[in-house]
Amino acid sequence: MDHVYRVTEIVGSSPESIDQAVRNAIARAGATLRHIDWFEVTEIRGHVADGVIGHFQVTVKVGFRLEG
Amino acid sequence: MDHVYRVTEIVGSSPESIDQAVRNAIARAGATLRHIDWFEVTEIRGHVADGVIGHFQVTVKVGFRLEG
Amino acid sequence: MDHVYRVTEIVGSSPESIDQAVRNAIARAGATLRHIDWFEVTEIRGHVADGVIGHFQVTVKVGFRLEG
Amino acid sequence: MDHVYRVTEIVGSSPESIDQAVRNAIARAGATLRHIDWFEVTEIRGHVADGVIGHFQVTVKVGFRLEG
Amino acid sequence: MDHVYRVTEIVGSSPESIDQAVRNAIARAGATLRHIDWFEVTEIRGHVADGVIGHFQVTVKVGFRLEG
Amino acid sequence: MDHVYRVTEIVGSSPESIDQAVRNAIARAGATLRHIDWFEVTEIRGHVADGVIGHFQVTVKVGFRLEG
Amino acid sequence: MDHVYRVTEIVGSSPESIDQAVRNAIARAGATLRHIDWFEVTEIRGHVADGVIGHFQVTVKVGFRLEG
Amino acid sequence: MDHVYRVTEIVGSSPESIDQAVRNAIARAGATLRHIDWFEVTEIRGHVADGVIGHFQVTVKVGFRLEG
Amino acid sequence: MDHVYRVTEIVGSSPESIDQAVRNAIARAGATLRHIDWFEVTEIRGHVADGVIGHFQVTVKVGFRLEG
Amino acid sequence: MDHVYRVTEIVGSSPESIDQAVRNAIARAGATLRHIDWFEVTEIRGHVADGVIGHFQVTVKVGFRLEG
Amino acid sequence: MDHVYRVTEIVGSSPESIDQAVRNAIARAGATLRHIDWFEVTEIRGHVADGVIGHFQVTVKVGFRLEG
Amino acid sequence: MDHVYRVTEIVGSSPESIDQAVRNAIARAGATLRHIDWFEVTEIRGHVADGVIGHFQVTVKVGFRLEG
Repeated sequence: MDHVYRVTEIVGSSPESIDQAVRNAIARAGATLRHIDWFEVTEIRGHVADGVIGHFQVTVKVGFRLEG
Repeated sequence: MDHVYRVTEIVGSSPESIDQAVRNAIARAGATLRHIDWFEVTEIRGHVADGVIGHFQVTVKVGFRLEG
Repeated sequence: MDHVYRVTEIVGSSPESIDQAVRNAIARAGATLRHIDWFEVTEIRGHVADGVIGHFQVTVKVGFRLEG
Repeated sequence: MDHVYRVTEIVGSSPESIDQAVRNAIARAGATLRHIDWFEVTEIRGHVADGVIGHFQVTVKVGFRLEG
Repeated sequence: MDHVYRVTEIVGSSPESIDQAVRNAIARAGATLRHIDWFEVTEIRGHVADGVIGHFQVTVKVGFRLEG
Repeated sequence: MDHVYRVTEIVGSSPESIDQAVRNAIARAGATLRHIDWFEVTEIRGHVADGVIGHFQVTVKVGFRLEG
Repeated sequence: MDHVYRVTEIVGSSPESIDQAVRNAIARAGATLRHIDWFEVTEIRGHVADGVIGHFQVTVKVGFRLEG
Repeated sequence: MDHVYRVTEIVGSSPESIDQAVRNAIARAGATLRHIDWFEVTEIRGHVADGVIGHFQVTVKVGFRLEG
Repeated sequence: MDHVYRVTEIVGSSPESIDQAVRNAIARAGATLRHIDWFEVTEIRGHVADGVIGHFQVTVKVGFRLEG
Repeated sequence: MDHVYRVTEIVGSSPESIDQAVRNAIARAGATLRHIDWFEVTEIRGHVADGVIGHFQVTVKVGFRLEG
Repeated sequence: MDHVYRVTEIVGSSPESIDQAVRNAIARAGATLRHIDWFEVTEIRGHVADGVIGHFQVTVKVGFRLEG
Repeated sequence: MDHVYRVTEIVGSSPESIDQAVRNAIARAGATLRHIDWFEVTEIRGHVADGVIGHFQVTVKVGFRLEG
């Protein structure tokens, strides 16, 4: 009943969009963490090359439930 | 000339994108508030189920003009 | 080896999406600044007309490398 | 499925404890708002009289679901 | 004894001064809200036209006591 | 002599009180981490059901000493 | 009529609760300062020993009225 | 040459204006502190009675040079 | 239609008032920048000499529209 | 191409300097984490004994690349 | 057992380094305050003359234990 | 008498120390800007290669006086 969560910080990137950078961060986190429940975007940055955006780079705090 | 605005805080969500979560928040606010003029995104969060993003959840401050 | 960068703040807008508002800001910055290397989104706002989003307006800090 | 919430800010107080000040804020909010779902404490203050705490005064953001 | 307050956010403006923009916000809030007790200035902005300040625009959080 | 610590973020909850939510977070952290030395509360939130607080949910940063 | 206050920062601690740490800070401040009027909690931290909370440690800003 | 300053926090008030509340804070600080050098406004608040501003209340950090 | 703005930071000062320090900053910015559209006050400081305010010093972010 | 990073928070200390406290944090992190790429200093604190600095204590966020 | 601390804010400076500016602040604080226990750096600024740094100027919060 | 300053943001780096990264930023700024008067450090970051700090990277806001 009294759940306990841990929060970890992941930086995902994508050449396409901010949304996709978030999805990539969550997908990668899910490869090693179980019971991910929520996330919060804390930073939106990106790299530029030759005047265009090479990729968006988004920092997300990811909360996952600790088991019993 | 000297307009006065009120600001209210709305949380919209969307399974598709951050943009759509903002649009949903504004659409719902517009159902009861007139003269909405601007918004500011103050938080981008979301829920995850089975390792993928169930929906984005975006908090927006919405400013609307008070009449006379 | 010890690069020095300058940071300038640009506000881009787009009727379509947050991503496009960022791209517009970077494109315009690139018209007058060389060696843009990275950016950071510091504010996401927008204007509303007749209950729908007229445009997103995104503030980005843009870092560019100073030559020698 | 895509819920929309409104957030309002309430200041509750209690001579006993911070917890009780939060509970008083939520109880009062519930008297006029339906579907309250979550809260966030944003400020903990208080008043002192004759060298002892007269009451704790806690600001909470309260989120409630908007219907259809 | 255990008062409960609600906080709402108002943006007032004035071509003359920051003080007057705050007074205009409070005056307008008082037209619809009773028992206003305190305010806090959270943002001071303004608009410029032809190189001079058209008006100051001040965001104030306004606290008012809820009855019984 | 020159200790090094790691900091991790835990969210504890409790239907009773903020204090107990903090204690639950620390207790759970202690089940897997040794040498916990200090904590800092960074967020106090909670859930509401039927107009009353279901549980408090407190985010704590927890610092623990790394060995050798 | 135009009161002037000074604000000082005190850190109180308690093995029992956050509330008691605040009360201890106020009690100690009152031993040397007269006319304490209000306080604001700015930090909630604590120490852990052997996996349990040794004491809560709360920073409070304390405002007291300066005489004439 | 290597000056050291202390910073203290003062809250001044005025029924007239924000500027005057700052001046009142500085004047009162100067009654007991020597070598005041600079200030920074950190909060602008105020009280309202019967729908009009009773007084502005401004928090200023005041820096003064410590002697030798 | 999709305007792009640049934001620059200016510090203006005035021995008289906060308002006048803002106006001085805007006036000076207007001497070299065209199409200034808005500003935001980000810091209010000042210098004190012989116990009275020598001048207010206000930092403003100034936004101006970039052409084509 | 779309790298994903994890961010962890480390507190290093040194009796000599802030720089050395940062280097100690990075060195210790490198003992267990591979592919460390960047860091950000988020807090500079320290302990004092008998009126002199015993050690500086610096919190750094450390980003490391996750493999595949 | 339940220690109470007071926190005061000191600005130290040094033409040589940030570390030395912190040490100067602590040394000067120790001339009038007993039982200083910890510090936290809250601002790093400095003055420039003829294109080189005249001195670093560092604000530190200093915590000292209050006796019985 | 009523000076006006402009503030620009520069990122300097150094493989040696935080102090030197600040000095490099100021030196480079001085190559193109006259009348630099003060600076403020707003971010301390760095890059790591093979487990050791490649360089510190420090963001400074630089204020320079605008002439008449």
